[in-house]
Amino acid sequence: MINGHTEFIAHLGWPTHSFKAPMIYNPYFESVGINAVVLPMGCKPEAFTGVLRSLFTLENIRGALITMPHKVSVVDLLDEVTPTVKVAGSCNAVKRTADGRLVGDMFDGEGFVRGLLGKGLALRGASALVVGSGGVGSAIAASLAAAGVGTLALHDVHASTADALAARLRTHYPAIAVQTGSSDPAGFDLVVNATPLGMNPGDPLPVDIDRLDGRTFVGEVVMKSEKTAFLRAAEARGCRVQVGTDMLFEMIPAYLEFFGWPTASADTLRAVARLEY
Amino acid sequence: MINGHTEFIAHLGWPTHSFKAPMIYNPYFESVGINAVVLPMGCKPEAFTGVLRSLFTLENIRGALITMPHKVSVVDLLDEVTPTVKVAGSCNAVKRTADGRLVGDMFDGEGFVRGLLGKGLALRGASALVVGSGGVGSAIAASLAAAGVGTLALHDVHASTADALAARLRTHYPAIAVQTGSSDPAGFDLVVNATPLGMNPGDPLPVDIDRLDGRTFVGEVVMKSEKTAFLRAAEARGCRVQVGTDMLFEMIPAYLEFFGWPTASADTLRAVARLEY
Repeated sequence: MINGHTEFIAHLGWPTHSFKAPMIYNPYFESVGINAVVLPMGCKPEAFTGVLRSLFTLENIRGALITMPHKVSVVDLLDEVTPTVKVAGSCNAVKRTADGRLVGDMFDGEGFVRGLLGKGLALRGASALVVGSGGVGSAIAASLAAAGVGTLALHDVHASTADALAARLRTHYPAIAVQTGSSDPAGFDLVVNATPLGMNPGDPLPVDIDRLDGRTFVGEVVMKSEKTAFLRAAEARGCRVQVGTDMLFEMIPAYLEFFGWPTASADTLRAVARLEY
Repeated sequence: MINGHTEFIAHLGWPTHSFKAPMIYNPYFESVGINAVVLPMGCKPEAFTGVLRSLFTLENIRGALITMPHKVSVVDLLDEVTPTVKVAGSCNAVKRTADGRLVGDMFDGEGFVRGLLGKGLALRGASALVVGSGGVGSAIAASLAAAGVGTLALHDVHASTADALAARLRTHYPAIAVQTGSSDPAGFDLVVNATPLGMNPGDPLPVDIDRLDGRTFVGEVVMKSEKTAFLRAAEARGCRVQVGTDMLFEMIPAYLEFFGWPTASADTLRAVARLEY
């Protein structure tokens, strides 16, 4: 129940129609008695700079969730960002510090990594292939690096995109062996589809499935269906898998912590979410 | 349930703690299936200009409710205002037209007048004394003028405030007989307390109650208790009365119409409101 004590999180993007965060956070806030609300704010690119700065002059803003098309452009508007933001090249959460600075972090990859750790996957020193070096692939690579993987292989249909991500990783994580070029999944502890392949019926699989080992853990970012064709094929080869929506729910606790609220488990959040709405 | 299709009304003021509009509008929206929400936004004076302009660059803003301390300063930021705003010298509702202009209106007095009309009081040609020429007194005087009263007497402890309001009324409504100076309630069809007297225990009554005729209708803006001491004294002399919260509920239909939603009766709004929260 919104009243004069309610805080808000501005959920900035355009278009807003597919936003999911309000239906996850708001039922959770209600269920635990946090007087706050996530409100979608449809914001076109030309309006974004002015809107972001003005919103953070309000007294009851707790933070902002930043989504497309502002995840990249927001980075240059902030006073401080994490290494994850620098590697990912994008930011999806902003808060204001007590002294008025705007601080940004990036939790897409963090959600993915928390999901893996929760499933018992050991990431420290592990080898991972991330296919797709766009926004979400870069975010996952950044969070895998922060989680201490030993080897990171990157592949993108645009080689220069993967090479640019590799360069950022080498700058911020010089101890990690970063490779680019091949999408051969053989021999990795972890293989991640961070491409849109699987969104549409008839999409090819993102890697050569015949080269996938049964001991490899396979993760997916596509949320189109509970189990994509890629995940089903991986399971058929004996692989353990993580579905796309796990990333979504596992990143929420990280956001709650970032915004200074008590954390909650992804299971709790999933139980109260009303995504069917 | 807020989702990616939700529109919002920015409720701008500072402090926000006593805001009542969210607990009136939001339960109403929910009860009739309007996907919109009124959100309090705590805004200090130095931030207001930037915030107002930026918010109206958002795609899903339906309008803004403006309250203290911005009701006066907002007027100069708008492209178009009604005569009621010009006489009242303040504005509490802003919307954006299709061609991008910001238009303001003022409904405090409109709520008061709708309440009177709903109680069967004939205002056209009537004589009214409004005690208190501050924000709400000016708004009520402006709406009484728009409703066609014949005589308006104004009194304020600061004579120059009443004189300034009188001058604005004479400019916009030259046909109305505007008087200032006396607070003698004798002989008026309507007497309005638009001062804060009644907010605190032991406050003196706003007019000399012994001079109040039983045929006079008495209205009140103080919402501190259901019936203020002034209203109780007026009733004891046989007067019909209007309580402070009537103004609040009667103005909401006017806002709904202004923002382009289907209207509702004050009784409907009162039935679903959760002001006890």
